[in-house]
Amino acid sequence: MSTDKQLITPLREARRFMIDCFKAVGANQAHAEIVADSLLEADYRGHYTHGMNRLETYINSLQHGLVYPNAVPTLEQETVATAVVNGNNGFGAVVGHYCMNLAIEKAKNTGIGLVVCHDSNHYGIAGIYVLQAIKRGLIGFSTTNSKCLLVPTRAKKSALGTNPIGFGVPANDGDSFVLDMATTVCSLGKIEIQRRKGEPIPPGWALNKEGKSETDPNIAIRDKLLLPLGGEEITAGYKGYGLAVFVDILSGILSGSNYGPYVPNSGTVANVGHAFIAIDPKVFVPGVENRMSDLMNYLRNMESVDPNLPVLVAGDPSRQNMEKVQMDGGLSYVQDQHDTCKKLAERLDVPPMKSF
Amino acid sequence: MSTDKQLITPLREARRFMIDCFKAVGANQAHAEIVADSLLEADYRGHYTHGMNRLETYINSLQHGLVYPNAVPTLEQETVATAVVNGNNGFGAVVGHYCMNLAIEKAKNTGIGLVVCHDSNHYGIAGIYVLQAIKRGLIGFSTTNSKCLLVPTRAKKSALGTNPIGFGVPANDGDSFVLDMATTVCSLGKIEIQRRKGEPIPPGWALNKEGKSETDPNIAIRDKLLLPLGGEEITAGYKGYGLAVFVDILSGILSGSNYGPYVPNSGTVANVGHAFIAIDPKVFVPGVENRMSDLMNYLRNMESVDPNLPVLVAGDPSRQNMEKVQMDGGLSYVQDQHDTCKKLAERLDVPPMKSF
Repeated sequence: MSTDKQLITPLREARRFMIDCFKAVGANQAHAEIVADSLLEADYRGHYTHGMNRLETYINSLQHGLVYPNAVPTLEQETVATAVVNGNNGFGAVVGHYCMNLAIEKAKNTGIGLVVCHDSNHYGIAGIYVLQAIKRGLIGFSTTNSKCLLVPTRAKKSALGTNPIGFGVPANDGDSFVLDMATTVCSLGKIEIQRRKGEPIPPGWALNKEGKSETDPNIAIRDKLLLPLGGEEITAGYKGYGLAVFVDILSGILSGSNYGPYVPNSGTVANVGHAFIAIDPKVFVPGVENRMSDLMNYLRNMESVDPNLPVLVAGDPSRQNMEKVQMDGGLSYVQDQHDTCKKLAERLDVPPMKSF
Repeated sequence: MSTDKQLITPLREARRFMIDCFKAVGANQAHAEIVADSLLEADYRGHYTHGMNRLETYINSLQHGLVYPNAVPTLEQETVATAVVNGNNGFGAVVGHYCMNLAIEKAKNTGIGLVVCHDSNHYGIAGIYVLQAIKRGLIGFSTTNSKCLLVPTRAKKSALGTNPIGFGVPANDGDSFVLDMATTVCSLGKIEIQRRKGEPIPPGWALNKEGKSETDPNIAIRDKLLLPLGGEEITAGYKGYGLAVFVDILSGILSGSNYGPYVPNSGTVANVGHAFIAIDPKVFVPGVENRMSDLMNYLRNMESVDPNLPVLVAGDPSRQNMEKVQMDGGLSYVQDQHDTCKKLAERLDVPPMKSF
């Protein structure tokens, strides 16, 4: 996604602006930094729907008292390898950061740690927590449930969220496998991009109220009925539906948070749940990093159908985006995002975000 | 899949026949029973590709010395919550049964157990091991890698197996969620059924050698290039590809078995790997079973697009099949399967399978 006017916002300035906004509505420095880093990382990795794009919604939730900016998560119960955490309705990113750290500690002791939490909020991209584990040399896994958008196979309405799965493994020389995927075919954001371009969406992304595959992005956004990964039943959409339930079991059912159809849309306290697993590769057969690098490089070097479109592994598109950001000197937000940030700066009386 | 002549084979007789066959090629009683029960359960649950249909291949592997029928798995290394097991090239079902039991023991102590193994063989349906955990009141998860059939997004050849994921959770009154899915859109077996019916396959199931979606089942079976869940890139096939790698990391990379493109096709020792996770719901927020039942029943009671096709949850199609088998008095194998069994009985000099 590139800007209309090619305005560039340095990472440091985007971070400064987000921190200032969060502090303006009552967040302490430490929490403002954790959430800003989470949104910044999403933009840096090319998940623009989960970065600065969320800032206004986050600020609104804080101002409406729906999220408590300085709430600290508490440990409710634990074993040597598992834990249940109460997010106390704090920032999702703060809760997530705490939980994954706890999972990592447990994995360092026992080889694996599984931590779930309730009373949390939107936690950004699942990949953030996976990276948190990878930075410590561990395998990371994370899921979260979310508001209803996914239509179970054969149903007329939605009953599950886009329920993402994050999974990542370190390889040699800083390389890593980082899978970060919704269990729907695509996000609403991707359909919005098609609408902006005035182009239809492919069959198999979304349904209309009649239960048919819809190609008009306007209707798809109005009806908000996303197909699970796999699409319709004939192409095994029931598997993506099953994976979305899998995510909701780990995130919501185990933690005692809202789940499935009970996750509210907005305007009320979310009480969503997340799950975090860390695994220490050292307790398995030596050479995990070498084998990871070997498999990833084998896949990358496969002959591709179109020589201009090389075979990638999960994490490569993000790495390409990070390289672009580095070369550009910062993030390329669309004009609409700059306008939103300008209004936010005025509303919260913080120095506006400077871009060049 | 119903038989041409509606021959019915009682479960007990199918089991007896399989045990006799395994014993005829050297398996001891205990191992013959474990493998027969694994294949029988697959048929009972409607996964006909993984039941009696595999018997001949299993017998051939044993007779060629590629699988050691009486090999006992050995524990190579462990922590309180993890383990690595050497399958010693025994039956996949025997190795899997041992590993999931070990994962269950660990979960009973610490809340979670993760066991991986190498030097194993085809282990049947992933669901078997999930059910093993469910029967003990635990959550079960299992994956295995397998011979190359899945084409990574953009590639011209296959480099991963159909790499299935099994996941199951107990609910109230014996109900359960049981997801058992390949990470490809469909299996080769499903394409074979279309060929037998003389019908095309839908776009998005398989590619041809030119890298295009293929609808002729003859070409699809000749080329053996299955699309990952999600299909082509435009409908997010890269997510299914990512999930297949996820499965291979857990099953193959952690365990030190063959992985990805190195899993041999056949005719040689397989050295495949599996992963098994058991989780004790008791270490999480009380009421997991109640919430499971509530979510499952909510989904089942949703209004469906076609009133004749109700919304299901993972495990329901298998329950429908088990009910049919119970009502019929046994399994309905196709004539071709009966012919194969008859030849096997002669070849191994065991009493033929009796059906009515």
